[in-house]
Amino acid sequence: MKAAQVTGYHRDLELRDVEEPKITGPLDVVVKVGAAGVCRTDIHILEGQWAEKSGVGLPYTIGHENAGWVHAVGDAVTNVAVGDKVILHPLMTCGLCRACRLGDDMHCENSRFPGIDTHGGYAEYVLTSARSCVKLADSLEPADVAALADAGLTAQHAAAKAAKILRPGDVCVVVGAGGLGHIGIQCMKAMSSATLVVVDRNPEALALAERVGADVTVVADGSHVARVLELTGGHGAEAILDFVGEGGSTSEGVRMLRRAGSYYVVGYGENVNIPTIDIISSEINFVGNLVGSYTDLQDLMVLAAQGKVKLHTAHYRLDQFQQAIDDLSAGKVRGRAILIP
Amino acid sequence: MKAAQVTGYHRDLELRDVEEPKITGPLDVVVKVGAAGVCRTDIHILEGQWAEKSGVGLPYTIGHENAGWVHAVGDAVTNVAVGDKVILHPLMTCGLCRACRLGDDMHCENSRFPGIDTHGGYAEYVLTSARSCVKLADSLEPADVAALADAGLTAQHAAAKAAKILRPGDVCVVVGAGGLGHIGIQCMKAMSSATLVVVDRNPEALALAERVGADVTVVADGSHVARVLELTGGHGAEAILDFVGEGGSTSEGVRMLRRAGSYYVVGYGENVNIPTIDIISSEINFVGNLVGSYTDLQDLMVLAAQGKVKLHTAHYRLDQFQQAIDDLSAGKVRGRAILIP
Amino acid sequence: MKAAQVTGYHRDLELRDVEEPKITGPLDVVVKVGAAGVCRTDIHILEGQWAEKSGVGLPYTIGHENAGWVHAVGDAVTNVAVGDKVILHPLMTCGLCRACRLGDDMHCENSRFPGIDTHGGYAEYVLTSARSCVKLADSLEPADVAALADAGLTAQHAAAKAAKILRPGDVCVVVGAGGLGHIGIQCMKAMSSATLVVVDRNPEALALAERVGADVTVVADGSHVARVLELTGGHGAEAILDFVGEGGSTSEGVRMLRRAGSYYVVGYGENVNIPTIDIISSEINFVGNLVGSYTDLQDLMVLAAQGKVKLHTAHYRLDQFQQAIDDLSAGKVRGRAILIP
Amino acid sequence: MKAAQVTGYHRDLELRDVEEPKITGPLDVVVKVGAAGVCRTDIHILEGQWAEKSGVGLPYTIGHENAGWVHAVGDAVTNVAVGDKVILHPLMTCGLCRACRLGDDMHCENSRFPGIDTHGGYAEYVLTSARSCVKLADSLEPADVAALADAGLTAQHAAAKAAKILRPGDVCVVVGAGGLGHIGIQCMKAMSSATLVVVDRNPEALALAERVGADVTVVADGSHVARVLELTGGHGAEAILDFVGEGGSTSEGVRMLRRAGSYYVVGYGENVNIPTIDIISSEINFVGNLVGSYTDLQDLMVLAAQGKVKLHTAHYRLDQFQQAIDDLSAGKVRGRAILIP
Repeated sequence: MKAAQVTGYHRDLELRDVEEPKITGPLDVVVKVGAAGVCRTDIHILEGQWAEKSGVGLPYTIGHENAGWVHAVGDAVTNVAVGDKVILHPLMTCGLCRACRLGDDMHCENSRFPGIDTHGGYAEYVLTSARSCVKLADSLEPADVAALADAGLTAQHAAAKAAKILRPGDVCVVVGAGGLGHIGIQCMKAMSSATLVVVDRNPEALALAERVGADVTVVADGSHVARVLELTGGHGAEAILDFVGEGGSTSEGVRMLRRAGSYYVVGYGENVNIPTIDIISSEINFVGNLVGSYTDLQDLMVLAAQGKVKLHTAHYRLDQFQQAIDDLSAGKVRGRAILIP
Repeated sequence: MKAAQVTGYHRDLELRDVEEPKITGPLDVVVKVGAAGVCRTDIHILEGQWAEKSGVGLPYTIGHENAGWVHAVGDAVTNVAVGDKVILHPLMTCGLCRACRLGDDMHCENSRFPGIDTHGGYAEYVLTSARSCVKLADSLEPADVAALADAGLTAQHAAAKAAKILRPGDVCVVVGAGGLGHIGIQCMKAMSSATLVVVDRNPEALALAERVGADVTVVADGSHVARVLELTGGHGAEAILDFVGEGGSTSEGVRMLRRAGSYYVVGYGENVNIPTIDIISSEINFVGNLVGSYTDLQDLMVLAAQGKVKLHTAHYRLDQFQQAIDDLSAGKVRGRAILIP
Repeated sequence: MKAAQVTGYHRDLELRDVEEPKITGPLDVVVKVGAAGVCRTDIHILEGQWAEKSGVGLPYTIGHENAGWVHAVGDAVTNVAVGDKVILHPLMTCGLCRACRLGDDMHCENSRFPGIDTHGGYAEYVLTSARSCVKLADSLEPADVAALADAGLTAQHAAAKAAKILRPGDVCVVVGAGGLGHIGIQCMKAMSSATLVVVDRNPEALALAERVGADVTVVADGSHVARVLELTGGHGAEAILDFVGEGGSTSEGVRMLRRAGSYYVVGYGENVNIPTIDIISSEINFVGNLVGSYTDLQDLMVLAAQGKVKLHTAHYRLDQFQQAIDDLSAGKVRGRAILIP
Repeated sequence: MKAAQVTGYHRDLELRDVEEPKITGPLDVVVKVGAAGVCRTDIHILEGQWAEKSGVGLPYTIGHENAGWVHAVGDAVTNVAVGDKVILHPLMTCGLCRACRLGDDMHCENSRFPGIDTHGGYAEYVLTSARSCVKLADSLEPADVAALADAGLTAQHAAAKAAKILRPGDVCVVVGAGGLGHIGIQCMKAMSSATLVVVDRNPEALALAERVGADVTVVADGSHVARVLELTGGHGAEAILDFVGEGGSTSEGVRMLRRAGSYYVVGYGENVNIPTIDIISSEINFVGNLVGSYTDLQDLMVLAAQGKVKLHTAHYRLDQFQQAIDDLSAGKVRGRAILIP
């Protein structure tokens, strides 16, 4: 089959003919790829940023946001059958460790991460596990949802935590209305009655934010902290969902946070660097957010099937992978780029 | 001032001239009544059903769903000022007992209940406490919200509990789309992503349910249990919000409930009569629901101000109280009847 | 191997020579039985009470509280190895359904129940799944803990729910200090700061209750409701853990429950039969309790290894199964009877 | 009456004759001081560290950990009577703002803080509010518990949050076994089944930790992070309760934290300075902790009355205030210093 592979760092991907993945374990599932999301992490991989961390051997196939059709299944697979439309949770998890048994499978102690530390979905077929397959509703197609598999799942996971503690009248500031942010806004809108104040430097991003559910938008032009305080009677917001995490985002964000408020860290880059006295005197919380669990992905697919979460996508054929990556690097992709094998 | 008073049981209310209430305690507030909801409980009071329970002396003024304008305040009142538009939490609570200190003020150990055990709002003025006053947004008028003070608050309180545990894809069956039910549907819609299946005998009630947010409506014609099971893949719903509580509602409701599901008892009349083996083998819960707390009423007023919860009302002048009661008895009131002094 | 089997209802078990179980699936585990608890349910099975419900074919081996040593494992088993000391969660669960993925595996949609609907542990070997095996600490032996596999797990599960909502000074009434109750008391003591008031008809049971952690004991002689109200300033208890569930237990229990309190139904037999008006006017909850999840069993084994939960047991050889059952029927067993193959 | 007052910064307190406080508001309470805790914050006040923040005018009486007997009450006080033994919540709260109504009164928007921004308890009498008075059990004396009013309450509040999420087998690392820490250990022991690992530089503090409930003690000698990882199978602890918050405590603490773990910030001094990528990749949380609510103080008094929380105290007469402060500065106080007027 065709696969776009990393053959060395600091060089382009290569489209190569490789063997199709085979079923060897009882819970193995081979999926015919219907769409694979192109993510900024893929560019970081090519730059070698993940080489040491993942320890993956070269050449290997990248692509960690995958959806498609079940092509073959192992002996013990009972939840999906050949032909089923599926989206794939980004991790292959063991199902037996304490984290998996608690339902927190994103903390599985024995997980693999296709596209990062083993072969991924920039290919005609990808090997996954029955434990990673979420069946799609009839109304959804792989190309509609593939990019929700990782980026969207992270947004859903963080939004679900925030929604659980917010009440009517509470304010949630969403920092960053880009790829993750515009999904997070839709997830919050679906699950919560909080007032959503969206902050971004880019007026186009704010225009999109308004279309997908922002109650108020604020340009991040230096006056935004003051603006949020004004909107909240000087108290600040009960929650901040920070999809940026760099360029001073966290220190600004904390100034917009109400006493006893919670700061959801999703985007990353800079340090959270806050005096402990400020943490205790206002009794605020910082909540880390990794990708979601398998059941979070089920939930997100429900919201997608209900039309409550929609994704803007730009389609490329698999053999146009270089164009997709170039466009993403150049900031030319509106929404998310998708490879269609 | 004019007040519609109970002068004896099993006879009509009388419009009488009585003294205006006076400020005597530091947290007392006198409110000029803008609107008072007419509730089925008022009819029950006249029938004597509450005589022993409340121990109230006659004559006294009924009316427990009140909104208006602050007319006078005690020395220690700091949260409202003369002229403020307010809705009144139905209870006057002490603020000092454990329940009050925990925020569960509806379980106050020293509460008074105007309209039930002391003078209420079928009058030009009513005496309440600073602790019962919730200020209204500019966009809301007393006549729009008075009937939310008790009936609506109960619906909001129950809906908030259910919303907290429901996830996307979960099903919540709302039993009864009448006075409380049609508010509960709107509260659920605002706070939750669950699929709302509304069951009622009355097709007109179901038509209203659809307009205010029901995802699916089911006529309670004997086949409704089977219909809900069919809609839920044979598993039943994660939650039942029962606004009826009589005529076999609870035993039918339990048959629509999924394993580990929760049954919210709001309406009342019959017994919950369920084998303990059914409770443990399917591990279901029954959750009682009283009127909400003060902060629940604040939340509900936020939802009303945001236009997410709307109430149908029929207006009567205070001196038309008999007409309002007669119409309610005869089932002629669409939505809630309101007295306007 | 030897196995004590049901060969017909309304007749004694028979000790028969049967084939040892074999590994056929990738997650199969065969365990050499170290101890099997003898439970009242086993007597009910012989009386035919479970025949229709379980649909099990005869002859089959009973015994649903099992612990021992891993004897053989399937290809995909990674969490235990041959020779490991283990206790077995009573259910064999699929790991793939929504309930399993949420960590609520006791609600698995595809579970088997060895000893109830397939061969159990009154035998030299028993077939289970990797998903059911919890490794034992060095300090624990199968005979010490086997009877915690089902009865103890149920008590732990209910106690963990109650402990989560109770605060210092709150009162938890434990109704019934028998097999489950005396474990539940120990679990509550380990996990909660609540004051434990234990009610039982039997003074010996109350003496045991005191030894294992009861703060107050009350003889159920008709005055116990009044006694609990007196102990709680007339308010009742924040929680009732009812391990009895018959003989009027639930209606009495509700009278001991405080406003906003929670009633944990564990024991079963009679109906919960309570007016809905009482449920809503005091805003009480009824919480069903099935056996616990896999992680609950892990937790219970931690408490056992820490010496916080201890079980009284009476040992019998496997071929003395009839004696064990007779003793249990006659009420001669102190604590739990255990068969040792 | 006699009162030890701040008459200027950077100089000693002065014992002066001042007027007794008077009842002026309906919820005012004057308490005859039975004991006042001497706290490091009192030294900071004298150094002028709080001058700007509190805006208090001089001279004024310090002392923010107070207990005693009710001496006089305002018209609307119903929860205590003259002669009652009480401990005082450190804040005087309004009871009317949203935070007070939710039960989170430590976030009251209109609070006063006796001993910090108004007259405190280094005196024969102190003015407080009915809302601040918690009645003491017969078995407790003011001198036994005064120092729990602020330091102990903070420890209880943080411990209660941690206890709520910890399960049997989970590990909680308590960093710092000093004044707050040794109370926190007792609170955790009473409310949780977690394994308590206590880290401190001081072997005497660790010896005390063991006596009050530590399961394991670890000397903070540079190898303690490795030691905690070893104790937790390399995974780290589910919770860290950090009563130090300076000298590198937080960066070390994070290295001892398990994936998805929670870090409770109580002590303060340094910055939390952690890369956002570490927060999201291990999905950890930081939880701020201020002094507890009124109901937390009620809970702590229950634990004290049950003998589950005990405090070491060194007694001084009110006129020995300078000696107490000098001893505290010199590190000569074992446990907490207490002034007895």
